Amino acid sequence: MKGFAMLGIGKAGWIEKEKPEAGPYDAIVRPLAVAPCTSDIHTVFEGAIGERSNLILGHEAVGEVVEVGGEVKDFVPGDRVVVPAITPDWRTLDAQRGYHQHSGGLLAGWKFSNIKDGVFGEFFHVNDADMNLAKLPEGISLEAAVMLPDMATTGLQGAELAEIGFGDTVAVLGIGPVGLMAVAGAKLRGAGRIIVVGTRPKCVEVAKAFGATDVVSYKVAPVEDQILDMTGGKGVDAAIIAGGNPDILGSAVKMTKPGGNISNINYFGEGDVLPVPRLEWGCGMSHKSIRGGLCPGGRLRMEKMVDLVRYGRIEPEKLVTHVFKGFDHIEEALMLMKDKPRDLIKPVVLLS
Amino acid sequence: MKGFAMLGIGKAGWIEKEKPEAGPYDAIVRPLAVAPCTSDIHTVFEGAIGERSNLILGHEAVGEVVEVGGEVKDFVPGDRVVVPAITPDWRTLDAQRGYHQHSGGLLAGWKFSNIKDGVFGEFFHVNDADMNLAKLPEGISLEAAVMLPDMATTGLQGAELAEIGFGDTVAVLGIGPVGLMAVAGAKLRGAGRIIVVGTRPKCVEVAKAFGATDVVSYKVAPVEDQILDMTGGKGVDAAIIAGGNPDILGSAVKMTKPGGNISNINYFGEGDVLPVPRLEWGCGMSHKSIRGGLCPGGRLRMEKMVDLVRYGRIEPEKLVTHVFKGFDHIEEALMLMKDKPRDLIKPVVLLS
Amino acid sequence: MKGFAMLGIGKAGWIEKEKPEAGPYDAIVRPLAVAPCTSDIHTVFEGAIGERSNLILGHEAVGEVVEVGGEVKDFVPGDRVVVPAITPDWRTLDAQRGYHQHSGGLLAGWKFSNIKDGVFGEFFHVNDADMNLAKLPEGISLEAAVMLPDMATTGLQGAELAEIGFGDTVAVLGIGPVGLMAVAGAKLRGAGRIIVVGTRPKCVEVAKAFGATDVVSYKVAPVEDQILDMTGGKGVDAAIIAGGNPDILGSAVKMTKPGGNISNINYFGEGDVLPVPRLEWGCGMSHKSIRGGLCPGGRLRMEKMVDLVRYGRIEPEKLVTHVFKGFDHIEEALMLMKDKPRDLIKPVVLLS
Amino acid sequence: MKGFAMLGIGKAGWIEKEKPEAGPYDAIVRPLAVAPCTSDIHTVFEGAIGERSNLILGHEAVGEVVEVGGEVKDFVPGDRVVVPAITPDWRTLDAQRGYHQHSGGLLAGWKFSNIKDGVFGEFFHVNDADMNLAKLPEGISLEAAVMLPDMATTGLQGAELAEIGFGDTVAVLGIGPVGLMAVAGAKLRGAGRIIVVGTRPKCVEVAKAFGATDVVSYKVAPVEDQILDMTGGKGVDAAIIAGGNPDILGSAVKMTKPGGNISNINYFGEGDVLPVPRLEWGCGMSHKSIRGGLCPGGRLRMEKMVDLVRYGRIEPEKLVTHVFKGFDHIEEALMLMKDKPRDLIKPVVLLS
Repeated sequence: MKGFAMLGIGKAGWIEKEKPEAGPYDAIVRPLAVAPCTSDIHTVFEGAIGERSNLILGHEAVGEVVEVGGEVKDFVPGDRVVVPAITPDWRTLDAQRGYHQHSGGLLAGWKFSNIKDGVFGEFFHVNDADMNLAKLPEGISLEAAVMLPDMATTGLQGAELAEIGFGDTVAVLGIGPVGLMAVAGAKLRGAGRIIVVGTRPKCVEVAKAFGATDVVSYKVAPVEDQILDMTGGKGVDAAIIAGGNPDILGSAVKMTKPGGNISNINYFGEGDVLPVPRLEWGCGMSHKSIRGGLCPGGRLRMEKMVDLVRYGRIEPEKLVTHVFKGFDHIEEALMLMKDKPRDLIKPVVLLS
Repeated sequence: MKGFAMLGIGKAGWIEKEKPEAGPYDAIVRPLAVAPCTSDIHTVFEGAIGERSNLILGHEAVGEVVEVGGEVKDFVPGDRVVVPAITPDWRTLDAQRGYHQHSGGLLAGWKFSNIKDGVFGEFFHVNDADMNLAKLPEGISLEAAVMLPDMATTGLQGAELAEIGFGDTVAVLGIGPVGLMAVAGAKLRGAGRIIVVGTRPKCVEVAKAFGATDVVSYKVAPVEDQILDMTGGKGVDAAIIAGGNPDILGSAVKMTKPGGNISNINYFGEGDVLPVPRLEWGCGMSHKSIRGGLCPGGRLRMEKMVDLVRYGRIEPEKLVTHVFKGFDHIEEALMLMKDKPRDLIKPVVLLS
Repeated sequence: MKGFAMLGIGKAGWIEKEKPEAGPYDAIVRPLAVAPCTSDIHTVFEGAIGERSNLILGHEAVGEVVEVGGEVKDFVPGDRVVVPAITPDWRTLDAQRGYHQHSGGLLAGWKFSNIKDGVFGEFFHVNDADMNLAKLPEGISLEAAVMLPDMATTGLQGAELAEIGFGDTVAVLGIGPVGLMAVAGAKLRGAGRIIVVGTRPKCVEVAKAFGATDVVSYKVAPVEDQILDMTGGKGVDAAIIAGGNPDILGSAVKMTKPGGNISNINYFGEGDVLPVPRLEWGCGMSHKSIRGGLCPGGRLRMEKMVDLVRYGRIEPEKLVTHVFKGFDHIEEALMLMKDKPRDLIKPVVLLS
Repeated sequence: MKGFAMLGIGKAGWIEKEKPEAGPYDAIVRPLAVAPCTSDIHTVFEGAIGERSNLILGHEAVGEVVEVGGEVKDFVPGDRVVVPAITPDWRTLDAQRGYHQHSGGLLAGWKFSNIKDGVFGEFFHVNDADMNLAKLPEGISLEAAVMLPDMATTGLQGAELAEIGFGDTVAVLGIGPVGLMAVAGAKLRGAGRIIVVGTRPKCVEVAKAFGATDVVSYKVAPVEDQILDMTGGKGVDAAIIAGGNPDILGSAVKMTKPGGNISNINYFGEGDVLPVPRLEWGCGMSHKSIRGGLCPGGRLRMEKMVDLVRYGRIEPEKLVTHVFKGFDHIEEALMLMKDKPRDLIKPVVLLS
């Protein structure tokens, strides 16, 4: 079969591989829609996870089940499914203690295009299908559905880790696709005022549609200064980091109230350390909590994401600014994530 | 001054009283809008809190500050304010441990028309103004604002105690004004499917506007049977009780998944006990938590409620089906809560 | 092989059965020590879980692995293991949402002597060995170890569900073996004063050794009255129910502060309903949470229990008042749990 | 009256001041025992909180009430009291949202020897006595009691912020007096293995008495390497930072499991930033939470601390290695905290 792969650091291209086979608990899936992610770019062009060769890329997909192992109970060939970016082994002590994302080690729940071939192939393999696939009901567009495996679950986790209460003031730092879903998530946890940091008009437009009440540009002045000003010097109840270099952590700490939460869903790809400013962190005594995590995956999470779309709670299709049709456009779509034209939020490639 | 008061159990009427005086930390407020509550009916006509004589009724008000004590820092005469139903003494160990509603004893944070005169007078007294009043900003209608002191904070607490996660299926049992705000709250915590129980067309209409996805009538079959059917026998992640007699608790337990939450915001006015069904509660081992509480009050909570309206997160004015103008209509409005005509959700009396 | 079984409601005796076989993820274990449980008595003599015939009893065991399936990674024949009473299927949505005890349905994580043969056989079967067994290190006695599968994990969960804070006042209602472990658990979560309800001298002695500071007898006066008196009318921060008939729930609610927690680890075997007293539950608004759950099982929990013994944090061997040697004594030990002689806390049968 | 004061950065000495006066809600207290704190040293000799002149030092005291304001209800002259280091204004929105430590601003709940005169005077002033004082019962030594205002509440908060579960493995980094109380706290929350980092024999001895199971010296190798080795490469469930320079934060992150907690109770007095290591923090996605906070104060917390001593749960008197008698020894005791002789944990000055 054909797949679009990382050939080595800095190089990507089409390769031929054997079609994967399903073990007793597994499924083989044919993609119906895929989306490239900024982390694919990090993987290939920045070597963020180290050297890989002939590793098929991609971890955002919806597809059709074409084969299942003998022990799979809830899925049959022909089922249309949402495939989470995180498809862990659920039979570990890490999963038992509630951290399936780190099942088998730090971040090891992330398998596609990291530990095994990703979803940019004619077929791909899903381990433990009953625990890692969710059915895609009628009435949800492929564009909306393919935002669930990573964008929605990541952005919404940003709001979860921020522990937002009704009426809280929340800052979302970065309004790429994940940040935009964090805006939707903050609204959906009951935030009052939602201040976003970003400048691209298309992103600002969707941020407002998702619930942003104020927009701040980092070009004007340090964002923490602006946000402290806007809140009468008090700061926000929670700050969600969805973009930026290591210094954004300091900005977030500075703009957050004592007792508030800093929630990170940004993949920090560079720098040895992320500096926490000592004084604004109260010399260690501010009760400003700093948390961050890889997105939740697995079947239940995807079913919850599906329900949020089904019942009209989120509209992730609004992230999709560029739609391609046909397998051959995967490379073009991926390059968009690299070049980031000004009107881009997220591209999708339809394969059905 | 004049006030509409409970004269004794079963009797209410107009009385004359001395205008209240402000201690050093207190404020005197003139009502701009008030709303009668079902609990006023319980108080007068069912003697729910016992005998009272010449106690001015009412605990839902927005008003104008007319006088403040010498130690009040943040309010001056002329300020327009939202006055929470719960105005506790904040200087107690109960408040220190996080339960201001029970400051001084079980439910003792509820002072208006319980421990002291309520808000249906020409003036009323607010203890600890800096801790118990919130400013009402321009641009929020009196109708919306007067739903915040009790309806909004109570309904939203229903969603808080239910500990709803993204995409959860939630049942709201009862869609009077508090239940409707619980629907809004469930949506605002990220629920997916929201199943409501109720039949009155006006309430059903607002329930749908607030986020209900399914409507169940108790007239058709036991609600737990219907809801279990609708969820493939699995039940809901959380059930919020916002109405009903003591048996509703059993229904809620039966329709909730193991590990789910039963959240009560209904005032149970009758019966010695509320029965929990043994088998469906897993013989004590189901991990179905049962919680319930008096609504949060105080300044911060009201500020959060105000922000939810200001930023368009809730639309409590949709509860207001009947608007009266003038002090003399208080009795008429109160009687509506007693008679509950079919098109009633909540009446408001404007006094400005 | 031989096993001591429930023959039908009201009847137990020795039977012959085929030795169980291990599937690819399973293990076959030979018991080294077993303990009968009150719930075995409920099962046989009260028909608590309905009719069963020729079902081998027992769910508390430590043993030696004698056979493992081909996919088992962490255990080999000869390993000495602690076997939790709760050995769920970990590959379900119930487990994904954090409730392995109800994996497959309400209480369905409990398999031994319920859904399949228990541990009172020459051999027994353990599903998903890597997820459900924990190694028993050298230096821990069999008597201590065999208290971990149920008594320790159940009692300690009583303290967990009670959400005890440092210095809290806690009541433990019932000081059988599970209640005693709840006392140890309350101390181990940082309780200050621990008031226990019980009268049997041996139990009282161990309760004090485990951290009880006050002992109350239900024979003197209603326990809630005594405990309210002892706490100056304020009540306890949390009450843990570890015994009693359905009315104990009302006592617990009455003795607990507004905002406090009622935690149940008692198996309620009779009555249609458990009555919650309306007034003391604040007419539904007291913020007194009522929770209860089947004990956590699985490997990780057992490893944590083992560590608590290994590092001297709990001394569950103090529960063991009667020790038998040899398989033939299982019936005698079980009958002790039925007859409950005054000096009994818990019997153990050693088989090694 | 006489007081031992900071005269300016780098200088301390005796001064004369007016005896303080009580406002209506306040108390004047005569110290019975005081203890100097490392933070007094930071304040004077490192200028940690900036310039101060003629500010009486000290924030750890038990004393006798000598005067109360007219509105004080629960205390009278002659009462022996524990005085928390943190005595906030409880009538603020910060307190309403649960962060009394930051009432009025970041760390502003800390008033003694920061915003107002401390406890090293013949008399000192306590704001809001009913909310900030706790009675000292008979039978608790002054040495034990004077460890409660700061050492116990701080160390125990280290365990609280670490969110320890039963059987968890916990590292405590630093075993000065606060670290030692964190060890006691970790044990009291149910930790299994407790690994401490420290070398001074007296501290190690008390650490073991308080529950430490393993001792690591930073002189041998990087502590994170040692602790990872000791835990089979898995790391600890929680790390509590109770000493060290800014790099200790990185050590803590490195030794903690994905999903684990880093809890800080160390006052970081130097450095612009505290560096979080990017890779071991999972590039922002490790679910390792970083929290830290000023110790809880106020009356309820002190009552809880008193109960922990009263019921034998903690033995803070074991921290006290040096006891002085008489007011004149305050300077000598303070200098001990500066010079830190090898056999010192904590000095106390008795004044009764």
